[in-house]
Amino acid sequence: MNSSNRRNFLRNVSLGSLAAISIPGIVSAAVAAEKTKKITLKKEGIVLFQGDSITDAGRKRDHEEANSSAALGSGYALMAASGLLLKHAGKHLKIYNKGISGNKVFQLADRWDVDCLAIKPDVLSILVGVNDYWHTLNNNYKGTIQTYRDDYDKLLSRTRAALPDVQLIIGEPFAVRDVKSVDDKWYPAFDEYRAAARAIADKYEATFIPYQSIFDKALQSAPGAYWTGDGVHPSVAGAQLMAEAWQQCVK
Amino acid sequence: MNSSNRRNFLRNVSLGSLAAISIPGIVSAAVAAEKTKKITLKKEGIVLFQGDSITDAGRKRDHEEANSSAALGSGYALMAASGLLLKHAGKHLKIYNKGISGNKVFQLADRWDVDCLAIKPDVLSILVGVNDYWHTLNNNYKGTIQTYRDDYDKLLSRTRAALPDVQLIIGEPFAVRDVKSVDDKWYPAFDEYRAAARAIADKYEATFIPYQSIFDKALQSAPGAYWTGDGVHPSVAGAQLMAEAWQQCVK
Repeated sequence: MNSSNRRNFLRNVSLGSLAAISIPGIVSAAVAAEKTKKITLKKEGIVLFQGDSITDAGRKRDHEEANSSAALGSGYALMAASGLLLKHAGKHLKIYNKGISGNKVFQLADRWDVDCLAIKPDVLSILVGVNDYWHTLNNNYKGTIQTYRDDYDKLLSRTRAALPDVQLIIGEPFAVRDVKSVDDKWYPAFDEYRAAARAIADKYEATFIPYQSIFDKALQSAPGAYWTGDGVHPSVAGAQLMAEAWQQCVK
Repeated sequence: MNSSNRRNFLRNVSLGSLAAISIPGIVSAAVAAEKTKKITLKKEGIVLFQGDSITDAGRKRDHEEANSSAALGSGYALMAASGLLLKHAGKHLKIYNKGISGNKVFQLADRWDVDCLAIKPDVLSILVGVNDYWHTLNNNYKGTIQTYRDDYDKLLSRTRAALPDVQLIIGEPFAVRDVKSVDDKWYPAFDEYRAAARAIADKYEATFIPYQSIFDKALQSAPGAYWTGDGVHPSVAGAQLMAEAWQQCVK
């Protein structure tokens, strides 16, 4: 058994007997299986959430302040932020959300100077990729999996150059199959985007959050429509599932 | 030492050595000190949050559906709901928020048939009282502490008659002293509203959440302005502090 097989074996064992373990147990098993290093939060550290509509979650774009619910939206970024702000109250973190609905990687790149580099985050969390695939189906977007890989690579290379000490968190793009927008035609093409995000996380030594595995396992507690309305956008329960995973990546 | 003294003694001991314990530790110590029975959640149970602006927290009033972030707002009700929906995914709870900004007890009573009794909650969580005091200062409201006691007693008597099996949670009205709106003139008058809510909770065998003690202790981790913008409305961190306490009242 080589180390990769062994890792998968351990992951399957730890997630296998699902009926016996709770949802928080599922999340911690999935995060632990990644064996990535945990993020540390320094005093007055800046945390930035970046991505598409899943991150955006209805935030008010005219709110520039840190830590307000208007500025954080009502999705996983708010929920992860509220958990961090409570648990690490003494650190006086500044948490921002600059996700924008509909964004693909090239659109993050277009606004990266203002919406990321100028903010000088100590922790940068990115979740992007579902639109890079989804919009090829019906929004006339011509990007391919290679476009996603190349664009994401360039974005992170540029980020590392500008912010050499930033701690990166990369979320796995995910979709919940057989819920509304997500049907068989997504597969196996969409799986390549998940794999690409994982490879990019490895290359840039980012902490990787395996959202797809976590949603897959959560289906054993409640059906897909409980976790997402349309297969792509998480429900309140789905957002909290993500926030729980996110927080487990922090020391 | 009588039982009440003993209870206070135990509470002080358990909360005493604060530097050594975390915020979640503070919350669990404060909730445990109340020794009230914990709420149980049945399958497909209905949970209703009621109260004023602290509960409302910007919810969209044209959203009638359960469990959506639009309908739940972005305060402690959303955060407690998201935690419940994750932890108890298999139960398919239906969670509603009908808090309305500015409400005092008599205004809950005015809309109680529609916004509470018709919803037939299994768990009813009420937080009301700060406006019953605050609006006497500058909104020309003439109610007294006795009005608050009498109105709250009538509301709960009516609730018990219509919903004999409802599990009640009553939150302690709280204010964070020396933050913006909350100055010395609030005291000791406002303390009577806190005591009245506790007495009402005892009378109706409700689970009582000691929010004031929890905010008081949280001040040892971060200043008042970290937990509330104006002394009355919680920040994201303050809302999560409340949600943590709320969830600890559930089995």
